[in-house]
Amino acid sequence: MRKFLGITLFLLVTTSNATQAQTAGKSLAERLGYARDAKLVIVHADDLGMTHSVNAASIKGLESGLVTSASIMVPCPWFPEMADYAKAHTDADLGLHLTLTSERVFYRWGPVASKGNVRSLVDSNGYFHLNWTETTHIDAREVEIELRAQIERALAMGVRPTHLDSHQYRLFENGKDIFQSVQRVAHEYKLPVFVVRDWFADRPYLETSLSADDLAVDHTVTIEPGVAPQKWADFYATALKNLQPGVTVFIIHLAFDDEEMRAATRERDTWGAAWRQRDFNFFTSAEFRALLREQDIKLVTWRELAHAAK
Amino acid sequence: MRKFLGITLFLLVTTSNATQAQTAGKSLAERLGYARDAKLVIVHADDLGMTHSVNAASIKGLESGLVTSASIMVPCPWFPEMADYAKAHTDADLGLHLTLTSERVFYRWGPVASKGNVRSLVDSNGYFHLNWTETTHIDAREVEIELRAQIERALAMGVRPTHLDSHQYRLFENGKDIFQSVQRVAHEYKLPVFVVRDWFADRPYLETSLSADDLAVDHTVTIEPGVAPQKWADFYATALKNLQPGVTVFIIHLAFDDEEMRAATRERDTWGAAWRQRDFNFFTSAEFRALLREQDIKLVTWRELAHAAK
Repeated sequence: MRKFLGITLFLLVTTSNATQAQTAGKSLAERLGYARDAKLVIVHADDLGMTHSVNAASIKGLESGLVTSASIMVPCPWFPEMADYAKAHTDADLGLHLTLTSERVFYRWGPVASKGNVRSLVDSNGYFHLNWTETTHIDAREVEIELRAQIERALAMGVRPTHLDSHQYRLFENGKDIFQSVQRVAHEYKLPVFVVRDWFADRPYLETSLSADDLAVDHTVTIEPGVAPQKWADFYATALKNLQPGVTVFIIHLAFDDEEMRAATRERDTWGAAWRQRDFNFFTSAEFRALLREQDIKLVTWRELAHAAK
Repeated sequence: MRKFLGITLFLLVTTSNATQAQTAGKSLAERLGYARDAKLVIVHADDLGMTHSVNAASIKGLESGLVTSASIMVPCPWFPEMADYAKAHTDADLGLHLTLTSERVFYRWGPVASKGNVRSLVDSNGYFHLNWTETTHIDAREVEIELRAQIERALAMGVRPTHLDSHQYRLFENGKDIFQSVQRVAHEYKLPVFVVRDWFADRPYLETSLSADDLAVDHTVTIEPGVAPQKWADFYATALKNLQPGVTVFIIHLAFDDEEMRAATRERDTWGAAWRQRDFNFFTSAEFRALLREQDIKLVTWRELAHAAK
């Protein structure tokens, strides 16, 4: 997925409109009450619950009105802080960022389910795997157990999620069995899942696993390693100026470049503290606000999408 | 325990020397190579691993030479940062702060063992209990399972602990069965446990559960709610000026009063960010260093105690 997300912006600029055609009649934009060629954007902050720094920056982003949606990592230590926020802000568009990896070195978390029931998901120290490699056998039944446990904890602690997505895209990029586990759980809890039409060509099982009532957004944009820090705003401005019609989800990662975040991510810069501060700076900026106006881009939420799909 | 620790300083000033007499021959001070009436102090930082702020302040304390020992909470998210430090600093006097509670509201952790095997230790959301009340049934067999899991993870991740102690004194203040679980585990791993002779009067099972080879330190000092922030240094200075002969363990709690620590402890001030910054300020101060010299107090470590006991 890293690979095919890397070319998302390229696709977004060069592909024809064929991929965005909805299968039956009205497009997603139309179902949301907009013209067929409207440019609609969800500005989505990932990884809430990971650290206090992520929580504080993401809440500030949401409250600026420029970040429309976010999703929370239930297994992470700071999840209770976000659950408390969600209970007090029922209008906030918060989903669950289903999490099966613990990708940092000095700061780690593990499953919500009993470890004995999800052995394939944990390493020898009981944390989620740092990474999934060719030799990591992940049991799709255990994935389903853990996803249910994460949703049940969120509900028990007062979160009413608007959607589901996947930390590090693990649930989308690792085959049909795992994606179908997500689909079963999503249908059971009646929650939309973040899936993008632009992904279908590379991962046909994503499309064939969807039922007629399932949503798929049209495009996604996310910044990747390789963009120089001083080119951050340029990358996003170019993406906004070249936006295609339909619903595009900007996947962003907010945090402050502070002591906690620097320590939590210090083994590598990618998605690190400075990276997240740059995302925060752009998506709460007057420049971003002006681009939305100039390009006639409307911000929407997962709650609106879910409502439109009904 | 909160109650009887609260009067420790009072006891320390008023009791006779009877309680410090070792059962057989040489006192602990003598076994350490000091005179019988030597005043020996372990300056012990608790709660390492809890947050990055605690880790950073405690490491700075240890490296100042004025904090001699510390213990690490294996279930906490920042344990890997401390395990990494321990591996790189094999001379640091680091024990395990055995942990069965998750006492904060917005930032939480759970067991190392599989939850299904330690049901009595977790709440309905899968975290360690926020508190143990009269109605919390804690199964001593499950305590033993969890303690072994914590020690095994620490060993697997490269920590070579010099001693064991108990977060919030839970393992000492909740009856003979739980304390004997600790003792069995400690004997198996050949590690000394932090037990204080001054506690025996109120908790006779602590004394009767010790075997002939087990260590007990003579006194302990820890600051408690009720001391005004501006009296912090006075409290410790008074304790140091009134120190009795023998081994006294100062139990302190170090962190910086920063964003992360304020957020992690914001539901109450006790043992909060400002509290821990005050402890850091005193125990790394020139005033503390001068008091040690003036009062002819020698700093010792758990490693020295364990060696002397052999």
